[in-house]
Amino acid sequence: MSAPSLPGRVLVREVGPRDGFQNEPEVVPTDDKVRLIDALARTGLRRIEVTSFVRADVIPQLADAAEVLRRIDVPDGVAVSVLVPNERGLDAALALRDRFDEVSVFLSASETHNRHNVNRSVEASLDGLQRVLGRAREAGLRCEAVISTAFGCPYEGAVDEDRVLDIARRLVADGAQEIGFGDTTGMANPLGVGRFFTRAAQALGDDVQLTAHFHNTRGQGLANVLAALQAGCASLESSFGELGGCPFPPGATGNVATEDVVSMLHEMGIETGVDLAAVLEAARAVRDVLGRPLGSHTLTAGPVDWSGTA
Amino acid sequence: MSAPSLPGRVLVREVGPRDGFQNEPEVVPTDDKVRLIDALARTGLRRIEVTSFVRADVIPQLADAAEVLRRIDVPDGVAVSVLVPNERGLDAALALRDRFDEVSVFLSASETHNRHNVNRSVEASLDGLQRVLGRAREAGLRCEAVISTAFGCPYEGAVDEDRVLDIARRLVADGAQEIGFGDTTGMANPLGVGRFFTRAAQALGDDVQLTAHFHNTRGQGLANVLAALQAGCASLESSFGELGGCPFPPGATGNVATEDVVSMLHEMGIETGVDLAAVLEAARAVRDVLGRPLGSHTLTAGPVDWSGTA
Repeated sequence: MSAPSLPGRVLVREVGPRDGFQNEPEVVPTDDKVRLIDALARTGLRRIEVTSFVRADVIPQLADAAEVLRRIDVPDGVAVSVLVPNERGLDAALALRDRFDEVSVFLSASETHNRHNVNRSVEASLDGLQRVLGRAREAGLRCEAVISTAFGCPYEGAVDEDRVLDIARRLVADGAQEIGFGDTTGMANPLGVGRFFTRAAQALGDDVQLTAHFHNTRGQGLANVLAALQAGCASLESSFGELGGCPFPPGATGNVATEDVVSMLHEMGIETGVDLAAVLEAARAVRDVLGRPLGSHTLTAGPVDWSGTA
Repeated sequence: MSAPSLPGRVLVREVGPRDGFQNEPEVVPTDDKVRLIDALARTGLRRIEVTSFVRADVIPQLADAAEVLRRIDVPDGVAVSVLVPNERGLDAALALRDRFDEVSVFLSASETHNRHNVNRSVEASLDGLQRVLGRAREAGLRCEAVISTAFGCPYEGAVDEDRVLDIARRLVADGAQEIGFGDTTGMANPLGVGRFFTRAAQALGDDVQLTAHFHNTRGQGLANVLAALQAGCASLESSFGELGGCPFPPGATGNVATEDVVSMLHEMGIETGVDLAAVLEAARAVRDVLGRPLGSHTLTAGPVDWSGTA
């Protein structure tokens, strides 16, 4: 059997400062956020989602979005992205337009999850995002739209692939240049992931960047990454330290860890431009800030050492 | 791109009672071992490595090997295997010949690791195993030989694939019906694993069962399982609760978790004959016995629920 081919280079977007800090029970101090983002921005990661402009009474963990955006010091060549849920969030972000490069919007593929998450129907979300995407593109921002529960919904079970692809097509028509497919509660398996990304590439064409966002809920995170890469996907989202997702019950895991992803990619000869040792240093720093063990494996075990000097 | 094919059915050998309990800092009480093995033997797992006949002064954790073997109550159709390091171990096991079905022997592919582990050269190990395999086959036992550090050695770095395959060929010639390839310190990556199992199947032929034994040291355990399956491997070793390997530093992971492997296989439509809920019950029981969090993801998160009733 011939081995499936893999991309030679993969883009990794770090989402820990948004997805991770949003889901921590304690608010991470702004000083720590700024220090950690500045560190991540010097690891070779080319894209970092730094915060989200959401209602401070709903998500107090990210109430300092504007201050974070103002204070971070990110080198040229590193794209800063912010998540916005709606036009009000976009307005708040645009007040700091010169401080970021990309915007991400989101909705869920399943009605019930979308209602739980943003209290509206998928159709109403799409209508709202059409306006957000239009205005963001006018402002010269690169736009990603993330489709949550793309591989299964905890409330509805299976999610129809055709439905996910229809939503993706509409978001592209409305201005999204990148579609992220989120395995929000870790229901994806590699066989389904491979099939889905093969179909998505055919359905959405070469001009749209397809991004995979996996959680490591049942330990399959990197297996799903592998399946996505084999199906031609070359853009991933991950969190340093395996932050993100729901940190409860204790021990439950979040997004795939950036350092685990980068380690696997490098071991397979795939370029990322990322300095693994520097990401591990940032992951150690966030572990110190949070004061608890993190799910990341490479952070615990250290990188693979081929020097033979153990 | 066409998706690589996967086997329709995979054999899973549970090695937690040997590999897991051997590596626990505290000796697990014999009563608990017997109870847990009896539970595992009723989960649909068809093969269980229950203990090892080693020197009690070297590995006190398994000093009760004979008692465990005498006391377990395993249903027909479940193959009981024991690990033996040498002829003395085989002698001790053969005193209870009617209590088990399979024997596993082991050595390392790399000289330095083999010397650290069994204090002899690879050549001396092979000579000794020739006698063990010969006598075990005469006693009607099915024989597996495990090659450790098959994908990399912490002391020597890269391990030559040809060397691993040469060792495997010799073990087959000496009577091994199954060769296990161990990623002892979690250095394997999916690309290398896929290439290796493709070569191994060609080199060793259809009469030899090839078994993959991965650790989840850097989170790539299930990705390596996926790559092995894509390369035609249909036999895996795993440990309930993700026991095994070196449990230090705290949080470091062992073998891939049986429940994580079974969950992924079932989600991909691959049959194992295993009742995932029953394995999770056994994993909860061993967690209670050990009194510490375990690395298993599905044990923490629960199985994927497609009912949509979250």
